[in-house]
Amino acid sequence: MSRQHASMPGVEQFDEYFHKNPAPKSLSKHQALTREFVQFHLESSPNRRIALVTSGGTTVPLENQTVRFIDNFSAGTRGATSAEYFLEAGYAVIFLHRQFSLLPYSRHYSHSTNCFLDFMEEHDGDDERVVVRKEYQEKMRRVLHQYQLAKKNRLLLLLPFTTVTDYLFQLRSLAVSMQPLGERALFYLAAAVSDFFIPRERMEEHKIQSREDHAGGQGAGASRQLVINLDPVPKFLSTLVHSWAPKGSMIVSFKLETDPALLVAKAEQALKRYQHDLVIGNLLTTRKWEVVFITRNGGERWLRVPKARRSKSISGVEELVGKAERKHEAQHVDLEGGTVTEGMEIESLIIPELAIMHTDMIENGK
Amino acid sequence: MSRQHASMPGVEQFDEYFHKNPAPKSLSKHQALTREFVQFHLESSPNRRIALVTSGGTTVPLENQTVRFIDNFSAGTRGATSAEYFLEAGYAVIFLHRQFSLLPYSRHYSHSTNCFLDFMEEHDGDDERVVVRKEYQEKMRRVLHQYQLAKKNRLLLLLPFTTVTDYLFQLRSLAVSMQPLGERALFYLAAAVSDFFIPRERMEEHKIQSREDHAGGQGAGASRQLVINLDPVPKFLSTLVHSWAPKGSMIVSFKLETDPALLVAKAEQALKRYQHDLVIGNLLTTRKWEVVFITRNGGERWLRVPKARRSKSISGVEELVGKAERKHEAQHVDLEGGTVTEGMEIESLIIPELAIMHTDMIENGK
Repeated sequence: MSRQHASMPGVEQFDEYFHKNPAPKSLSKHQALTREFVQFHLESSPNRRIALVTSGGTTVPLENQTVRFIDNFSAGTRGATSAEYFLEAGYAVIFLHRQFSLLPYSRHYSHSTNCFLDFMEEHDGDDERVVVRKEYQEKMRRVLHQYQLAKKNRLLLLLPFTTVTDYLFQLRSLAVSMQPLGERALFYLAAAVSDFFIPRERMEEHKIQSREDHAGGQGAGASRQLVINLDPVPKFLSTLVHSWAPKGSMIVSFKLETDPALLVAKAEQALKRYQHDLVIGNLLTTRKWEVVFITRNGGERWLRVPKARRSKSISGVEELVGKAERKHEAQHVDLEGGTVTEGMEIESLIIPELAIMHTDMIENGK
Repeated sequence: MSRQHASMPGVEQFDEYFHKNPAPKSLSKHQALTREFVQFHLESSPNRRIALVTSGGTTVPLENQTVRFIDNFSAGTRGATSAEYFLEAGYAVIFLHRQFSLLPYSRHYSHSTNCFLDFMEEHDGDDERVVVRKEYQEKMRRVLHQYQLAKKNRLLLLLPFTTVTDYLFQLRSLAVSMQPLGERALFYLAAAVSDFFIPRERMEEHKIQSREDHAGGQGAGASRQLVINLDPVPKFLSTLVHSWAPKGSMIVSFKLETDPALLVAKAEQALKRYQHDLVIGNLLTTRKWEVVFITRNGGERWLRVPKARRSKSISGVEELVGKAERKHEAQHVDLEGGTVTEGMEIESLIIPELAIMHTDMIENGK
């Protein structure tokens, strides 16, 4: 393995990165779980495809004992929703997600937008059992069935990460563990990965003290600024494509932009640079309703949810964590029972398309 | 109001801050909800005390259309747990919380640590209703009762924030709206508020582009760094104490440190500087089991959960979002039904103590 790696582009750069930054403690445990998961499906259903779905944002700690960190916006909706549709399409799913981001199935009842306690009531009968309210029964039964099916058939492996360094260590480990799958592996890289980080050697040990904590006398240092210097994170996609991932596997990346004028050019540039299979471009403000597929044959194809079927849910707005222009809604109002219209999820269009492309790649080669 | 403010320390500094940075869109709506909440309790139960509990970390957006931001570590456990004990102690609670952080009551079934779907099953009877599993019935009935009681009696107002600027605008607005409560108001400032921010005028409009996106030819700019310059956030506690909060109200702040050698001195320093009533000091690693009360009479009093009653739950570990040394647990294992021992919550010691101090202040004056 190491000889193969040494001759590949980017591998030396990563050797240095992995040497200088600490591996997550969970790495070997997660590796063992992944190998077992891959082996189970190789043996029990030789045609089973496995999708690695990455989801949520990475953090960049500013201190070693971390109180502050830089974060990338992502609630994990794209990843968690996509994972469900991959399962529906017959894939097994390894879900590499930011800790505390949304998870497949439970995302329907996230504690802050649809507080699940509002779905419950005490049963009138003798037994006083807590039960789900009648009006929510049908959906919850459906979600519960899918969830239990995935559990029973061992189709879903949940692995958490937090920092960008955790993420990179795990991505390499997972990709290598998936090599026995060959072309039946699919990488769906929906996580929002930081482009910058602070190397271990430059990180503060304790909480960075604010101005006043340092100031000796009154007024001293009143205009003290904090300056943070970040290094670029090595670009992993090329190394994933050429070294870590199984030969012949399908690799899909995302490009999120805020400026519509840049989106398609940026997506094309990424595809050309990394030589993988598909870039899915999306804009921060419209990502729930439209995405663009950029493929190697020069295609630019838009997928859109019809206007009449777009969700009227407030969650689309609320999820824009930190967005300066978002509309706040007091959750007080929700507790009184707001109405949420369920729309069509764009992932229900994306994943079946990918499954077809994947089949085509397996049958006809790349 | 403005004349009073103009003569108070720190107010000019905040006038400038509030002038130069944009108010959250929800501000007037939240203000109206708060006034109505305060008025309702003033009229219906003249002795009702109201606690403003702040919870979760603030963000500092790096871009105006935000993709990246600096965050302060906080899942909101302290705030959400404390709010429940304030309600139990007879307070009405305004819960000013970071969007998506933990909420009172629903925190017991957060979607990532205790996935609530694991608590559900289909009933065997004719009706095929989804019900709560027998072994979880008792706790869920208790939580549901408390939640419904708080809703029915309008004892809990949930108001979200995201950025540090949102937080400061709302804190001022809430404090001023609470002035009719006088000494019956209590401020419990458990939120982790950023000490630094980027002024609106220096913020990038669009997503900051990474190295490669700028590089014209291959290899150009390979070592490009990102430098972030942050200004200090004006210190709000003094202004809250002397200008915004009702006269005679009780004000409690927190001091979180990672270095045990600094904790007590830092807490004492804060109390002396801001002239409020109580600083609760806690260390990142032991904050679930011990805190120290620093009071104006020179007291240093430790509250501790007895060793035998400390929670064995993994959530204490898992919550250390981004902590480099944390132990990751694959959530896969949890899905199979991990055992969680419920321990005593230190907030069950903190809040009754505060209620006694508050009574004493009301009866005997500050």
